[in-house]
Amino acid sequence: MNGPAPTDEDLPARTGCRVLLVNPNTTAAITERMVAVARGVAAPGTDVRGIEAERGVPYIASRPEAALAGATVLELLAAEHTNCDVAVIAAFGDPGLFAARELLPIPVIGLAEAALLTACMLGRRFAIVSFATVLGGWYRDCVALHGLESRLASVRLVTEPFASVEAVARDKRDALLALARDAVEHDGADAIVMAGAPLAGLAPMLQGECPVPLIDPVAAALTQAEAIWAQGLARPRPAAPNGDKASTGLSAPLAALLRSAPHSR
Amino acid sequence: MNGPAPTDEDLPARTGCRVLLVNPNTTAAITERMVAVARGVAAPGTDVRGIEAERGVPYIASRPEAALAGATVLELLAAEHTNCDVAVIAAFGDPGLFAARELLPIPVIGLAEAALLTACMLGRRFAIVSFATVLGGWYRDCVALHGLESRLASVRLVTEPFASVEAVARDKRDALLALARDAVEHDGADAIVMAGAPLAGLAPMLQGECPVPLIDPVAAALTQAEAIWAQGLARPRPAAPNGDKASTGLSAPLAALLRSAPHSR
Amino acid sequence: MNGPAPTDEDLPARTGCRVLLVNPNTTAAITERMVAVARGVAAPGTDVRGIEAERGVPYIASRPEAALAGATVLELLAAEHTNCDVAVIAAFGDPGLFAARELLPIPVIGLAEAALLTACMLGRRFAIVSFATVLGGWYRDCVALHGLESRLASVRLVTEPFASVEAVARDKRDALLALARDAVEHDGADAIVMAGAPLAGLAPMLQGECPVPLIDPVAAALTQAEAIWAQGLARPRPAAPNGDKASTGLSAPLAALLRSAPHSR
Amino acid sequence: MNGPAPTDEDLPARTGCRVLLVNPNTTAAITERMVAVARGVAAPGTDVRGIEAERGVPYIASRPEAALAGATVLELLAAEHTNCDVAVIAAFGDPGLFAARELLPIPVIGLAEAALLTACMLGRRFAIVSFATVLGGWYRDCVALHGLESRLASVRLVTEPFASVEAVARDKRDALLALARDAVEHDGADAIVMAGAPLAGLAPMLQGECPVPLIDPVAAALTQAEAIWAQGLARPRPAAPNGDKASTGLSAPLAALLRSAPHSR
Amino acid sequence: MNGPAPTDEDLPARTGCRVLLVNPNTTAAITERMVAVARGVAAPGTDVRGIEAERGVPYIASRPEAALAGATVLELLAAEHTNCDVAVIAAFGDPGLFAARELLPIPVIGLAEAALLTACMLGRRFAIVSFATVLGGWYRDCVALHGLESRLASVRLVTEPFASVEAVARDKRDALLALARDAVEHDGADAIVMAGAPLAGLAPMLQGECPVPLIDPVAAALTQAEAIWAQGLARPRPAAPNGDKASTGLSAPLAALLRSAPHSR
Amino acid sequence: MNGPAPTDEDLPARTGCRVLLVNPNTTAAITERMVAVARGVAAPGTDVRGIEAERGVPYIASRPEAALAGATVLELLAAEHTNCDVAVIAAFGDPGLFAARELLPIPVIGLAEAALLTACMLGRRFAIVSFATVLGGWYRDCVALHGLESRLASVRLVTEPFASVEAVARDKRDALLALARDAVEHDGADAIVMAGAPLAGLAPMLQGECPVPLIDPVAAALTQAEAIWAQGLARPRPAAPNGDKASTGLSAPLAALLRSAPHSR
Repeated sequence: MNGPAPTDEDLPARTGCRVLLVNPNTTAAITERMVAVARGVAAPGTDVRGIEAERGVPYIASRPEAALAGATVLELLAAEHTNCDVAVIAAFGDPGLFAARELLPIPVIGLAEAALLTACMLGRRFAIVSFATVLGGWYRDCVALHGLESRLASVRLVTEPFASVEAVARDKRDALLALARDAVEHDGADAIVMAGAPLAGLAPMLQGECPVPLIDPVAAALTQAEAIWAQGLARPRPAAPNGDKASTGLSAPLAALLRSAPHSR
Repeated sequence: MNGPAPTDEDLPARTGCRVLLVNPNTTAAITERMVAVARGVAAPGTDVRGIEAERGVPYIASRPEAALAGATVLELLAAEHTNCDVAVIAAFGDPGLFAARELLPIPVIGLAEAALLTACMLGRRFAIVSFATVLGGWYRDCVALHGLESRLASVRLVTEPFASVEAVARDKRDALLALARDAVEHDGADAIVMAGAPLAGLAPMLQGECPVPLIDPVAAALTQAEAIWAQGLARPRPAAPNGDKASTGLSAPLAALLRSAPHSR
Repeated sequence: MNGPAPTDEDLPARTGCRVLLVNPNTTAAITERMVAVARGVAAPGTDVRGIEAERGVPYIASRPEAALAGATVLELLAAEHTNCDVAVIAAFGDPGLFAARELLPIPVIGLAEAALLTACMLGRRFAIVSFATVLGGWYRDCVALHGLESRLASVRLVTEPFASVEAVARDKRDALLALARDAVEHDGADAIVMAGAPLAGLAPMLQGECPVPLIDPVAAALTQAEAIWAQGLARPRPAAPNGDKASTGLSAPLAALLRSAPHSR
Repeated sequence: MNGPAPTDEDLPARTGCRVLLVNPNTTAAITERMVAVARGVAAPGTDVRGIEAERGVPYIASRPEAALAGATVLELLAAEHTNCDVAVIAAFGDPGLFAARELLPIPVIGLAEAALLTACMLGRRFAIVSFATVLGGWYRDCVALHGLESRLASVRLVTEPFASVEAVARDKRDALLALARDAVEHDGADAIVMAGAPLAGLAPMLQGECPVPLIDPVAAALTQAEAIWAQGLARPRPAAPNGDKASTGLSAPLAALLRSAPHSR
Repeated sequence: MNGPAPTDEDLPARTGCRVLLVNPNTTAAITERMVAVARGVAAPGTDVRGIEAERGVPYIASRPEAALAGATVLELLAAEHTNCDVAVIAAFGDPGLFAARELLPIPVIGLAEAALLTACMLGRRFAIVSFATVLGGWYRDCVALHGLESRLASVRLVTEPFASVEAVARDKRDALLALARDAVEHDGADAIVMAGAPLAGLAPMLQGECPVPLIDPVAAALTQAEAIWAQGLARPRPAAPNGDKASTGLSAPLAALLRSAPHSR
Repeated sequence: MNGPAPTDEDLPARTGCRVLLVNPNTTAAITERMVAVARGVAAPGTDVRGIEAERGVPYIASRPEAALAGATVLELLAAEHTNCDVAVIAAFGDPGLFAARELLPIPVIGLAEAALLTACMLGRRFAIVSFATVLGGWYRDCVALHGLESRLASVRLVTEPFASVEAVARDKRDALLALARDAVEHDGADAIVMAGAPLAGLAPMLQGECPVPLIDPVAAALTQAEAIWAQGLARPRPAAPNGDKASTGLSAPLAALLRSAPHSR
């Protein structure tokens, strides 16, 4: 072979990735559930840790709550990013994703993003299934944000109210499975994304009863974090950050990041 | 936590993935290079193997060659898929990808697909850089196939002819780096895909000289194969395949697959 | 008139077009039916001939079968193109169309392409009606390939299984007519494409019972071949083909074409 | 063969098509030129006739002039359509096309439409070349009207002023050829549409000097008219027109058509 | 503050706007109704006047009628524009809008345009509700003309015939309200456009019974005319119009405008 | 006239609109400038007031700063909305717009939104001109958010650094004018949006030197606020808000709004 011979130094395969799940909700039980799911699919050396917001709502279910979460995500990441290699915004809908990506010196992945991209690798079109009609607008916005409208078969949502966000995965199990099957039969979905942090861990439980792949966004995000890390694709930093952006009343780490950000495209 | 507690059985994290790189070119040296790059980023237990076509062209560089490669990919996969867990179509442009995905009982990932989706996780828009103008039409078709036109910043191609496909990565190193930098500065690219199997392994070598992430499609595809595998997303098979599709003159394994395929959407 | 006066030499109206229908299926009866339909609409001097594949499936009904057909089309065309003026890829879905167009020195037209473009001249939006649900994904891909999504009203498909591909046009006549009418009434279709080689000849039989034009893809393709020929739009060849592309194991005519192809955009 | 056997009655191949070129300009010399070009490519039995507007402008070159032409086209067609089988709106930009199609009981084809669809059959992307910058906006609107933006490579226009519309094809010959070549080399055009009625007849004269097909819109429209006619795709009329639409001050034939139109979708 | 201090001269807030509603229908009663609705929302100093066509149809309900209206609009505007500051094309569907905008030296706004843009400011997606199915095609074309397809939730139309265009708003009140509610509940509409000049004034009457904003296109257009006027955004005229465009048989004011038009992009 | 006669009660034309400009920057001088511009175009009875953020950055110029601003906007609006009739998010890019619209019981308009929609009424395509390259990504995202990509001609940005945000309108006056003219000549822009709060008031000063309309976003937003108000399009509230959404650590007014929000689509 005449070309450049790849060497160990050139191709920096990495293990031991430290992944931080940033849950912009305030419900620690949801963080715990997501961490458990992530650890279940993680490679041996991967370290998974989760944090949730101290202020905000127990679960994000509307555009205003997502907008608040976008700022919360930046605050949490500014404070915690030095202790991880890759961060995951652990709310389906990806609040603050492209902002965080522009601000942080480490890769940041969205829960929805990872699930949608995974779905793309499993068929022509995917459906999104979730537990409340109120989520529809925000989730459709999210698909558009990622430019994937042409691959969306449908969004199907449980219309009956639910009792608690902690128990919704269990209580609505059958309704969610029925929606997934409907999306396959009527909407032509080749894969189903079980969307929403409260449903973490449900997809593999229902897989045996559904004719197409069921994607768990937390599992998708964890494995994408590992994939980005293994490729050594940490975000390069510019030689000369602008360095002079003032701010008022922000946390010290967030102010520092804004001050040094490349203000990239 | 009141919801379903994920158990080991529910969340089937997997290691030891056997990945097959199916190179529809006839150049064994390119297969070897890709296998080396893939092994360089693979997790400890992953097994990487490569095969190339016995008939066809030394490298695929046009739509007709890609169309021939689409059939070659199916023939190779029909013969070899039982010995691997995930297959990668190892030619940028992804000949036969959605056909293979519909036919095979295992996940199949495209080199371009993996690189483009990885690029999506690293910024708003990506550029594709490669070594010959003739590749432009086919590569643009590929971006459209994946529905990612809105995220493409540009395709930039070396216009000077190259001496040999084995040496092109070395000989055109500087020209390719210059194109990557141009794509950042003039086209607003947040990430660069170094496209084309003959360039496998080049991206990490040039990373230090480029202000945005440089993506190696082989590394992207290998880690995506591992990610799909870790999530347990093998393609479910229908209970009742149609079973009666006749064929003439095809290889026995290919005929068998067509006979039993679900003929899914 | 002061401008250039068109002369006979400048405006090379042509008659006596030799059209080759390349059926990538193996069913000679379908080729025969298509040739009969084509001759039925052909101008006096037009010569229509058909060939089918020697290897492959009796009818193409999925993406993998279409991918195999893409290569078959190139092999057949390489062998036969010197005996015709315009070639038609005679399978709805147009396997190998843009590859053949890049490779061959003569115009190549797709059955679906001709039907969809004809439909565009008859209204704002068209529907596609065919005889099996399995065809839906492939047909939608084909509409997207031609960039005509904004003009597609719907795809409506018979859901009941059919006994044989030779008899499906007769057996499903009423179901297909009902779908066509539904597409007009419920989907706003201004024209209907009766898609699939096995339905060749059906559209004009049902026209009297449908309020909008019913398009027969074979008739559309034959008349488009004549139109391209009459305009003298044979594909110009470059002065200097690259001439040095090696290949292995391909048929001699196909290898020769690849060797001399312009490798155009 | 078990299916329906196409008979002569079922497949109404037709010859002797009477085509009317409706030039909404007032310049008879342009009508004459277009009729000559059309006759040059017409099949033996085809009859070609042309009319121009009595009121309006010598050539249409802006959106307001096209809007006026849209009404003129309907008036001319209402008066003359009973003497032809297919009508062609003989102004690039297709003023009134979809209105005429909805109103008239015969097929109506646009000059631009026929040229663009012909271009689609000759490559992935086409360019439009014409003789005045003022035409750009209207021509781009026209491409969008037909939903073909994804297949447009570029619009290239002569920027130098021209002396007369009758002589522009001769005077700007070299400039137009240079633009066509630029569109191939720099914009990736696989085919070129020589747009604008005053350029009728120019494309075949320049073909020998251009590496991709040059399309003459008049030739394209004439052959499309023959193709639609040969397929027997006259527009079906509804059994029960609404019949009661009053109007004031319109020509008698136009009022009659409006009164009986199906007011279709 | 260091920057330029806005002065009264720089910021030409204007009152006393003279708005002309150009109704291309022949029904004076509809003009009157629209003028009444417009005056109802107009600012104190605004002057509202309306004219209708002397020739044409009582109400525009199809593409051919809209094409005729496009020319009528230009004729009316050429004659009357010197007596107003902003013109409104007072037919939903906006016949002749972009032509008038290119021709006239004053701002011209479309009824549909104003309603759709207003709807965009009230939610993510809007629905169009109107009184006859025949309007659907034309209205969808109009949404596409404005490039707003991605914000359209649905078009819902009364299917039962109506007795008279003057009384349709009263007679179909309940049916229209039901369609609006369906669009909210089933199509996800955040706002409803009550489309069609004959429905002017209906939206505010039904607002109390609908959970999302109901937009009256006449009210929208009047307030947009005032907004454009207040911003001082009269269309600048070029220093050197082309000045030499001849025409035949057009009204003197229209011929004059064509002669002096900038023939802008 | 037989239809419903609009009465004063039905058509609630309103004056005396109280508009609040919510500047999510911390620079009071920019708020003051925007209030002055807004008052300059406001109708006699309109009341204009402005507030700026107490925490954040002096001017928003990147996605992370916009994400923080999205939350700030909700906090400010929750506290202040009861004292105004319409709110304007006074930062080009519209941080938090659709979130605020979902949350607040009053209409909320974005600075960019108002400018882009105004531009749509003045031509086919608009350009955005601003003072720093760093703004490009965020501004393009904003155009996509509003679904107006097909109407964007270009984004042109001053590449030279600026000394202070207060003085940038004055210091870069000539560079900005040159970019506007380039956008007209080279990109085909029919109107120009002078984007960025620091440029408020500049557009009318430069209008005399530019051949197409120059739009001031603040003027556009103020007049759009008046237009929405005059139409009486306050956002209807649902009869039964969900009422039970808990939150932690948010301001009391924001918590109250989240608790009572309809959680609409």
